[in-house]
Amino acid sequence: MVNVGILGATGMVGQRFIQLLENHPKFEIKALTASQRSAGKKYQDAVTWHLDTPIPESVEDIVVVDTDPGLVKDVEIVFSALPASNAAVVEPKFAEAGMKVASNASAMRMEPDVPLVIPEVNPEHLDLIEIQQKRRGWDGFIVTNPNCSTIALVLTLKPIYDQYDVNRVYVSTMQAVSGAGYNGVPSMAILDNMVPFIGEEEEKMEEETLYLLGDFDGETVEPASFGLSTSCHRVPVVDGHTEAVFMEMDEDFELEDIKKSMQEFQAIPQKLDLFSAPKNPIIVREEDNRPQPRMDRMREKGMAVTVGRLRQDASFPRSLKYVLLGHNTIRGAAGASILNAELIAEIM
Amino acid sequence: MVNVGILGATGMVGQRFIQLLENHPKFEIKALTASQRSAGKKYQDAVTWHLDTPIPESVEDIVVVDTDPGLVKDVEIVFSALPASNAAVVEPKFAEAGMKVASNASAMRMEPDVPLVIPEVNPEHLDLIEIQQKRRGWDGFIVTNPNCSTIALVLTLKPIYDQYDVNRVYVSTMQAVSGAGYNGVPSMAILDNMVPFIGEEEEKMEEETLYLLGDFDGETVEPASFGLSTSCHRVPVVDGHTEAVFMEMDEDFELEDIKKSMQEFQAIPQKLDLFSAPKNPIIVREEDNRPQPRMDRMREKGMAVTVGRLRQDASFPRSLKYVLLGHNTIRGAAGASILNAELIAEIM
Amino acid sequence: MVNVGILGATGMVGQRFIQLLENHPKFEIKALTASQRSAGKKYQDAVTWHLDTPIPESVEDIVVVDTDPGLVKDVEIVFSALPASNAAVVEPKFAEAGMKVASNASAMRMEPDVPLVIPEVNPEHLDLIEIQQKRRGWDGFIVTNPNCSTIALVLTLKPIYDQYDVNRVYVSTMQAVSGAGYNGVPSMAILDNMVPFIGEEEEKMEEETLYLLGDFDGETVEPASFGLSTSCHRVPVVDGHTEAVFMEMDEDFELEDIKKSMQEFQAIPQKLDLFSAPKNPIIVREEDNRPQPRMDRMREKGMAVTVGRLRQDASFPRSLKYVLLGHNTIRGAAGASILNAELIAEIM
Amino acid sequence: MVNVGILGATGMVGQRFIQLLENHPKFEIKALTASQRSAGKKYQDAVTWHLDTPIPESVEDIVVVDTDPGLVKDVEIVFSALPASNAAVVEPKFAEAGMKVASNASAMRMEPDVPLVIPEVNPEHLDLIEIQQKRRGWDGFIVTNPNCSTIALVLTLKPIYDQYDVNRVYVSTMQAVSGAGYNGVPSMAILDNMVPFIGEEEEKMEEETLYLLGDFDGETVEPASFGLSTSCHRVPVVDGHTEAVFMEMDEDFELEDIKKSMQEFQAIPQKLDLFSAPKNPIIVREEDNRPQPRMDRMREKGMAVTVGRLRQDASFPRSLKYVLLGHNTIRGAAGASILNAELIAEIM
Repeated sequence: MVNVGILGATGMVGQRFIQLLENHPKFEIKALTASQRSAGKKYQDAVTWHLDTPIPESVEDIVVVDTDPGLVKDVEIVFSALPASNAAVVEPKFAEAGMKVASNASAMRMEPDVPLVIPEVNPEHLDLIEIQQKRRGWDGFIVTNPNCSTIALVLTLKPIYDQYDVNRVYVSTMQAVSGAGYNGVPSMAILDNMVPFIGEEEEKMEEETLYLLGDFDGETVEPASFGLSTSCHRVPVVDGHTEAVFMEMDEDFELEDIKKSMQEFQAIPQKLDLFSAPKNPIIVREEDNRPQPRMDRMREKGMAVTVGRLRQDASFPRSLKYVLLGHNTIRGAAGASILNAELIAEIM
Repeated sequence: MVNVGILGATGMVGQRFIQLLENHPKFEIKALTASQRSAGKKYQDAVTWHLDTPIPESVEDIVVVDTDPGLVKDVEIVFSALPASNAAVVEPKFAEAGMKVASNASAMRMEPDVPLVIPEVNPEHLDLIEIQQKRRGWDGFIVTNPNCSTIALVLTLKPIYDQYDVNRVYVSTMQAVSGAGYNGVPSMAILDNMVPFIGEEEEKMEEETLYLLGDFDGETVEPASFGLSTSCHRVPVVDGHTEAVFMEMDEDFELEDIKKSMQEFQAIPQKLDLFSAPKNPIIVREEDNRPQPRMDRMREKGMAVTVGRLRQDASFPRSLKYVLLGHNTIRGAAGASILNAELIAEIM
Repeated sequence: MVNVGILGATGMVGQRFIQLLENHPKFEIKALTASQRSAGKKYQDAVTWHLDTPIPESVEDIVVVDTDPGLVKDVEIVFSALPASNAAVVEPKFAEAGMKVASNASAMRMEPDVPLVIPEVNPEHLDLIEIQQKRRGWDGFIVTNPNCSTIALVLTLKPIYDQYDVNRVYVSTMQAVSGAGYNGVPSMAILDNMVPFIGEEEEKMEEETLYLLGDFDGETVEPASFGLSTSCHRVPVVDGHTEAVFMEMDEDFELEDIKKSMQEFQAIPQKLDLFSAPKNPIIVREEDNRPQPRMDRMREKGMAVTVGRLRQDASFPRSLKYVLLGHNTIRGAAGASILNAELIAEIM
Repeated sequence: MVNVGILGATGMVGQRFIQLLENHPKFEIKALTASQRSAGKKYQDAVTWHLDTPIPESVEDIVVVDTDPGLVKDVEIVFSALPASNAAVVEPKFAEAGMKVASNASAMRMEPDVPLVIPEVNPEHLDLIEIQQKRRGWDGFIVTNPNCSTIALVLTLKPIYDQYDVNRVYVSTMQAVSGAGYNGVPSMAILDNMVPFIGEEEEKMEEETLYLLGDFDGETVEPASFGLSTSCHRVPVVDGHTEAVFMEMDEDFELEDIKKSMQEFQAIPQKLDLFSAPKNPIIVREEDNRPQPRMDRMREKGMAVTVGRLRQDASFPRSLKYVLLGHNTIRGAAGASILNAELIAEIM
């Protein structure tokens, strides 16, 4: 068993880390950190637990410590659910102290020597770790996963992008409130309502997507160059981000071939049979009215993305439209970091 | 005062007609029709009233009749809130009987001699009435308004399309449940959920939009020819359709000019100061997080469309993005038919 | 016109005060206060406006001042939407400075010389003002209205309590999220969920109700003595508190008599025809499935309480059950304070 | 393995039966019935599946038959999810044909020779089976479980009623929309709204509760005689009925004793370790703000009732208040019938 810790363990994503790591076959939680206010308390007393399964007994009595590498002992991997501003300062300290940091925070994602990875999409970017350690003189390192909306999108783009010349992509999201954290969206803002804006979300989606699908020469990433434009919206859904995708290709294609590529898409996590890897990263549904958040978000324990409404426009002959759904705090956050760590534990 | 009737007066849109016509300065409700089950009852006994203002006293005791022109006496204009299949059969009978039919039903919209009109957008299409009457031998006629999602979209496209070469438009909608009628969307389908499909909605939006912005030579309409693709979704909102619009132009433009065109947009209904005409058909908001359905749907008594988040993509230099919101059962249905009738009453 | 000010003008209840006072025939807003962070800004820049009607033009440019009587000039009445802790300190200062304070805050409600008043229920308690002024040496005074849930309940109890010996009352509430302020209830707490607890709400309802229906000898209030027990719950509704009421009487009664008492209930505000007074404070509906928040909360501009499901239990012969609904931020907050001020302006 | 069938297998409760019986250690689904419209189709083609777990593979290809005992072969137990009117006619035919009918329908519940059973509460009522078979000349029999709201209530009343003299009970429910079936509650009726009425629900709760807690002399049930009054309301929650309970006892008691009785409550299903039996039928929570539907409904696989806010009123010294939550389509419907069948399979 590998000893792991969770940085920022009391927030929404921190709770998901704990939930997903319960009964994990390789990772055992040994340390939990939070803000000073919580330090010194047992986890069950420090947290306001918001998930619909109980707090795992194995972590109830762990005493929460301040987010300081000197206080996190005998731990090989730390999962970071820290807020971005905090992560920028603290994650490097953990890497310097020799720990492997699998981070869900956005702070370090676009650093040129920090891998931004979806295991099914760009595992080769992990080669940046060696460069990172050399350049920064760290024994440990930082690996990041993308934003929740980006992950679900890129997983569905990958099998298409690998086989076709993509010209332009437009994406309109309908995102769940859990993405903003427990207190992020007041009920007054969202009951019988929706909000057509999520701070910095469009910028992250556009930059990260092209970066993840970019070319990597072993040292630097050259972002993909197709046009990409997003519009991000918050809707009254608890968990599960839905995205409407419009694409145009630079070549002819058959819709059935696209569908088959998605359904058959598998990559390293599936080949290595990693514990958190979905058997099929993309589930394609034929019904008109799917995917739906409440119905589909938990497929493959929340680690698969469900795609539906694959279709073409009569007026755009090389166009492709579909709707996708991914669980934003599992596949899009805690589960993403854990899958990164599982891949690293297996291949490094 | 002009005597008017409402066909299909007990449904959601029928109720909106009644609500909006209360205290109307020119139209006075004299007849209400519904299915045979309701015929013979007083309106207040026939209807299950679903609006948040009370049933107007003036219609409470009107005896509902079957939807048959022989039973609708001394009425000049009838507003049709009939279901499409029924409208196809019944509306022509009313026109034949000499009545002016202002219809919200989709049945006759694409008939080449039936005007499909938004008064601010294509009032000249009303010239088809003469052709319609001649060809069909009717004393009355049928005029239609577009689908709810189409109206809000086209109102915002009009000032842009008039001044710029539009290349392509992508639209992703987030539509309110009232659009499906009172029993249309079960709560089990939409609580903590959304549905990425609305039957025939995308087809209507795409066809009607190009038709409304088309060229009219006095006899036939040549649809506009830019690319248009839509994806329609239902979200847990009572009233108010939100649409995320992505455009590409064939020429350079300044964002401020577009904004100004929208803000200053006015047309015949404003010039004639029609009772139901909004002072400004398009309200542009500067805040990041607007428009929002619960906040903005009732602006200008539900007859204005609110636009926000006007912006361009760095990666698409001639691109334009914005979010719009329109009240689907007022501007997008009953109010649309009434404004059509007001224009006709004024100019014919 | 009487010049008025609003203390705590940027919060939810503060905004309702502004909305309700637009076009008021007797009160004209001359001053707005808020926390230091907002002081010095124009109201439209200081507020994040959350209501579905626009900010009234008449207040847009009023410069917000700190909540200090020295900064509120030429104002006769101030409406207080301050948080309780703040109100306890600040309201007395305004009264001392000679202003009439009509407060929605809970801080001073149970002070023995401060009237806690619903104009239809216990206007005679206003006689405490003289005692208050004498005892405290103030030129001004403080008058309070009850908690939102209390007001709706007591309005319906009043005509019953006046005519029958009430033995015990049980009340279970289903309260709207707006009652907790804009940021009070996170969406994560209430989507597909409800919360069976509202801090201090049950205590307030029980104490205030008995006090409002108590005997007043001109100097002190002797609370009513029937048994009263409440259970308070938060549900996913924007505005409008619903309450299920179970009563037992100490004497026989006819259900029809109770209904008639409610329907015919009128009091001083109706007799004086006060501007904000509902024509009928209680609206009784016969339908099985009413009252409903979205349908009924705005009756009589949000100032009436709607009652439905009046019925008796077979197994409790002297029992009475009904469901009531009141708008929590209008009749239950800002509108309550304004009605108090209208009564005072008329009779004092 | 015992072969079982499900009557009315395509509705909401029918789907729950199928979900809960997947991987059941003793019951194996061999037959599925539905209306004639579905007969002859494979289950996966006949059903519109609404649960958030996939259709179990084992039933996908079962051919649905009409609800006729002649078409249901080699089955020992049938679970009935039929509508009441249909159940009254059809269930006796299955019993006559020799099958054991475990019914969730209300039709036969109050028949004097049909057991209405909650295994933890009144298992001895199963002795009515022998009387039923003798009287009606059936080889099979019918056993029923109560209404969803009743089950959750009575489970919490049982340990109290066994130890204390209960004088009166008032219950106000806040019920989930799934209780009305998939199409039962339109979204227009419940978004930003609630409905204070559920047809026949109050009557069922009051009659069934007293009956379940009644005295059984081996032949007939003498209902309990305390006063019981209910008020039933629908709220915007998908699954999980919440109930606010007010009680008065005829004797003094300690709150801690009541709590302990609830926490320690166990009965025959726990002693026999039945597969669907919760380890603890009642979970008592100490937090102010629990139980909550989304957080607590799935405890013990949806078979436990969660209780919170146990407290007394100052003004009613022998009073007791609490809030309970139970999963309405698991513990309150399909799971209830299955637990009944498990008990019967074990003891008969």
